[in-house]
Amino acid sequence: MIFFVTENIHKFDEARKLLAGYNIAVAMLKIKTSEIQDDDLEKIAEKGALDAVAKSHLPIIVEDAGLFIEALNGFPGPYSSYVYRTIGKEGILKMLKGRKDRKAQFRSIIAFCNQEKVVKTFQGIVEGTITEEVKGSGGFGFDPIFEPIEQPGKTFGELTTEEKNRLSHRACALRKFAEWYKHF
Amino acid sequence: MIFFVTENIHKFDEARKLLAGYNIAVAMLKIKTSEIQDDDLEKIAEKGALDAVAKSHLPIIVEDAGLFIEALNGFPGPYSSYVYRTIGKEGILKMLKGRKDRKAQFRSIIAFCNQEKVVKTFQGIVEGTITEEVKGSGGFGFDPIFEPIEQPGKTFGELTTEEKNRLSHRACALRKFAEWYKHF
Repeated sequence: MIFFVTENIHKFDEARKLLAGYNIAVAMLKIKTSEIQDDDLEKIAEKGALDAVAKSHLPIIVEDAGLFIEALNGFPGPYSSYVYRTIGKEGILKMLKGRKDRKAQFRSIIAFCNQEKVVKTFQGIVEGTITEEVKGSGGFGFDPIFEPIEQPGKTFGELTTEEKNRLSHRACALRKFAEWYKHF
Repeated sequence: MIFFVTENIHKFDEARKLLAGYNIAVAMLKIKTSEIQDDDLEKIAEKGALDAVAKSHLPIIVEDAGLFIEALNGFPGPYSSYVYRTIGKEGILKMLKGRKDRKAQFRSIIAFCNQEKVVKTFQGIVEGTITEEVKGSGGFGFDPIFEPIEQPGKTFGELTTEEKNRLSHRACALRKFAEWYKHF
């Protein structure tokens, strides 16, 4: 059994369903860990994982994810959840209004750490574009304004968890983790 | 002698000039400290101060500041420097385009800490509005789009360091610190 340190039930649910396919049991663990300010998701996730193990003494995974919009120099990036809570999807759409270049990436880092301080990170990236308007109400965060290249015409907000898990950044990082963890 | 931990020469310069008036000598100290992600400036500054003393073993001050825009639920707040580096002043103006409510605050927290782990914080706030366009090239960061209530018609970017130090959030926090430090 491993513990996914998150307060986001949607993230946990995506992870639980995907890891079940690898026979990896995962439980949600809500503990306060400190997140550092850094432009590098990997560093944030690594430090968070070490902090979580220091506090829980359990084998854990943490995830840090962000939406990186090319025309905005990578904004909102590692601060996506704060930006979502303040200016939201509408704020992003307003900032991109009239802009042709709407390329974006969702990136996810899964960091694993256990009591022996083995730390390992796994990255997943999905390429896409920012839509002109909000579409769909599934997923969470900026999902309804992100259209992945591999599923043109549909945003992450219009996909079921199963469909999103076929191509999302988080699913990609989780799959890399699962493949490694099976032989760990 | 105290040490101001910052990589921002403008911040240091404002502090040096102001603290000279209190006969407090201050040197600029460039060391990497980790900054946590938190919506609360005071927590960020406090943790930063403890971290800086652990690394330097010197009596230090750190500053954390942010621009809090009312109509944007406090955005960009504690992440102002990241937001400045990515979407910049123009991004903020675009987001506020056509909005009547342009109220904003600049907030500054000065955190002092010494080898004996005495930690003390001081807050300064200045009320103002976000202009419709960039005005002036002085100051730094979002200064050229912030017009303080006490100096209508001029942005922080149009003031000299001396003028800005009469009414800025940072100057206010530094003055509180200096008054306390003199009797410390």
